[in-house]
Amino acid sequence: MEKITERNSQGRLIAAGSADADIRYGSGFNAADEFIYFERGGERFTAVSTLEFSRALEEVKEGVQVVELAGIRKKYPAEESYLVSLSKYYGITEWLVPERFPLGYADALRKNGIAVQCVQGDFFPERAVKTPEELEKIRQMMRITENAMRCVQDMIRSASVNTHGMLVRKNGDLLTSEWVRREVEAELKRQSCTADRTIIAGGLQGAAPHCVGEGPLPAGMPVVCDIFPRSDETGYWGDMTRTFCKGTPSPIVRRAFESVRNAAEKALAMLKAGVTGEAVHVCAAKSMAADGFTAHKNADGIPCGFIHGLGHGVGLDIHEQPRLSPANKEPLPVNAVVSVEPGLYDPAWGGIRLEDLVAVTENGYENFCTMEKVLEVE
Amino acid sequence: MEKITERNSQGRLIAAGSADADIRYGSGFNAADEFIYFERGGERFTAVSTLEFSRALEEVKEGVQVVELAGIRKKYPAEESYLVSLSKYYGITEWLVPERFPLGYADALRKNGIAVQCVQGDFFPERAVKTPEELEKIRQMMRITENAMRCVQDMIRSASVNTHGMLVRKNGDLLTSEWVRREVEAELKRQSCTADRTIIAGGLQGAAPHCVGEGPLPAGMPVVCDIFPRSDETGYWGDMTRTFCKGTPSPIVRRAFESVRNAAEKALAMLKAGVTGEAVHVCAAKSMAADGFTAHKNADGIPCGFIHGLGHGVGLDIHEQPRLSPANKEPLPVNAVVSVEPGLYDPAWGGIRLEDLVAVTENGYENFCTMEKVLEVE
Repeated sequence: MEKITERNSQGRLIAAGSADADIRYGSGFNAADEFIYFERGGERFTAVSTLEFSRALEEVKEGVQVVELAGIRKKYPAEESYLVSLSKYYGITEWLVPERFPLGYADALRKNGIAVQCVQGDFFPERAVKTPEELEKIRQMMRITENAMRCVQDMIRSASVNTHGMLVRKNGDLLTSEWVRREVEAELKRQSCTADRTIIAGGLQGAAPHCVGEGPLPAGMPVVCDIFPRSDETGYWGDMTRTFCKGTPSPIVRRAFESVRNAAEKALAMLKAGVTGEAVHVCAAKSMAADGFTAHKNADGIPCGFIHGLGHGVGLDIHEQPRLSPANKEPLPVNAVVSVEPGLYDPAWGGIRLEDLVAVTENGYENFCTMEKVLEVE
Repeated sequence: MEKITERNSQGRLIAAGSADADIRYGSGFNAADEFIYFERGGERFTAVSTLEFSRALEEVKEGVQVVELAGIRKKYPAEESYLVSLSKYYGITEWLVPERFPLGYADALRKNGIAVQCVQGDFFPERAVKTPEELEKIRQMMRITENAMRCVQDMIRSASVNTHGMLVRKNGDLLTSEWVRREVEAELKRQSCTADRTIIAGGLQGAAPHCVGEGPLPAGMPVVCDIFPRSDETGYWGDMTRTFCKGTPSPIVRRAFESVRNAAEKALAMLKAGVTGEAVHVCAAKSMAADGFTAHKNADGIPCGFIHGLGHGVGLDIHEQPRLSPANKEPLPVNAVVSVEPGLYDPAWGGIRLEDLVAVTENGYENFCTMEKVLEVE
């Protein structure tokens, strides 16, 4: 029998379904229902139900051992929780867990003399630096995402404008946010990707960055289109935003678009490994402020201008490390994947956001988006 | 200022995004990012970021108050976590939380003298009994789910069979699990529903209940089709399974199908409020055992026969209370919604599963499925 040393009585533990990016990252296994990932010493394990055992054997990452929970439970059947059984089986007296670890499990473990402590910050900080295989999965998602964006552009371009200034489909129906969203998400599903809450926010709705948009789309006003699908197969996300206008926009909208586009260009021009997330954010913010678009609250107390961070990491989570925001004083690492998405918002005229997804390189970046940034579609 | 009494210094708290069924149920609010739901005395609250405030005001359930986290944080800015600020603001010294409550939050609260205890079992046991509005949302999901199932049936029916005994589409391509899944999930998206891991498991793959299926579909063998979409709008799930065979099945498959269908009929015949979940499960299990299909392990140790529970509740979660299983000794309540899904599995010939979704009534049930249970499609 294996001797329990100080070192291998400590472990790291996750209990979640693979909607959780950390367990997906650690195990490589994809299952909706909860399963277990843990590390002890240099060893890595995935513990699953009997039902999932053979599939897990095929899917887990290289070097990860698959164990059957039923076997462990059988050896320690009387314990309060199957995680207590697992801890005893492997001789673990102290677990490090993610901050999202379920309290019910932690309390049961602690009650049985097994220490449980949250990792401060990220459970897998290495997720911020993508491997070549991860980069390829994200590239693949962005090809699909960009194709979807071109479909949206075509829907708006090919619409006609009725006497009320609203966009109309070829069949005579009004072109609505809901219809565009459904068509795009259906097409993404056909590519084995799941998108939800795709933003197609026309006119003044675009002033709220998270508004998904509803109802008929107007001509002569910006339509913010933000598409962020997740691959059903790999679990990696894509993320991209363009803003389109059918017909002639107002001068302020045109000015805002130019300002956002310039801010994106300047931010990208300075982006490279070693630069801080803060510096890139501040560069974009200053650029838009210099154009007269300062962050402020309007008379109704609604925040206007550039009211969010410039970007975020994308991988197995849609929002992950590193951030391009004032809070990130750390230098960006090579092979970080970040969105660069300056935006301007104002209930007086709507919203403009332009988002590329890029990989940080030693001397610059690789842009996963090739699509032009042009407001007017005719 | 409000006086803090014994009673209103205790509260119930959830911190999650609305993928979590409890926070969706309590708040009525739909947001991917984490937000807060809490109860104090008879009052109910949803606490959200500034970005989500106006949308939350529109969406929350009647009687739920919306509060802005930033305002609360501002009043107690120095606390370790914004949940500590919230607790102080509302004078809470003791929280009851779900078992899935994030440990990081619980530890921060406890460290600051605020007690946190898990609710044993369900946070909202009342979720097991559906309101008329909930029943209607599930009915609506099942109309969509059943339409999708008829599409799958048509795909298999309209396929031809090549010389290798595989199904072929009209365009000459092989009919694969992946293609059927993508087409079905795309069509569901067009109905504003998200389905993932739709099971289209042909031939021997059907012997593993959770196998989603891959590759070309065979003729003369059963294809297990299990469709379970969630409404993007309401958050409620549908769930339905049929098993189809193009061409002539083997005698054992035909016998298994008849046995499963009879088991479903007998289970449904006894289903009504007051009957226990266990009794309905046992009825179906006995019926199939009497037909010669007993649960056992084969020579390779693979579980065969009826190897799962007969059914589960469906609502804002795909698997919720009440269960139709040996573990549920409780009488079923009126307006519970449960799946009734007997199945038989054997690596020697594949799998058969037939699943209806029904609402329990005082004297029987309302079946949300109208589709016939017929194996052979020609």
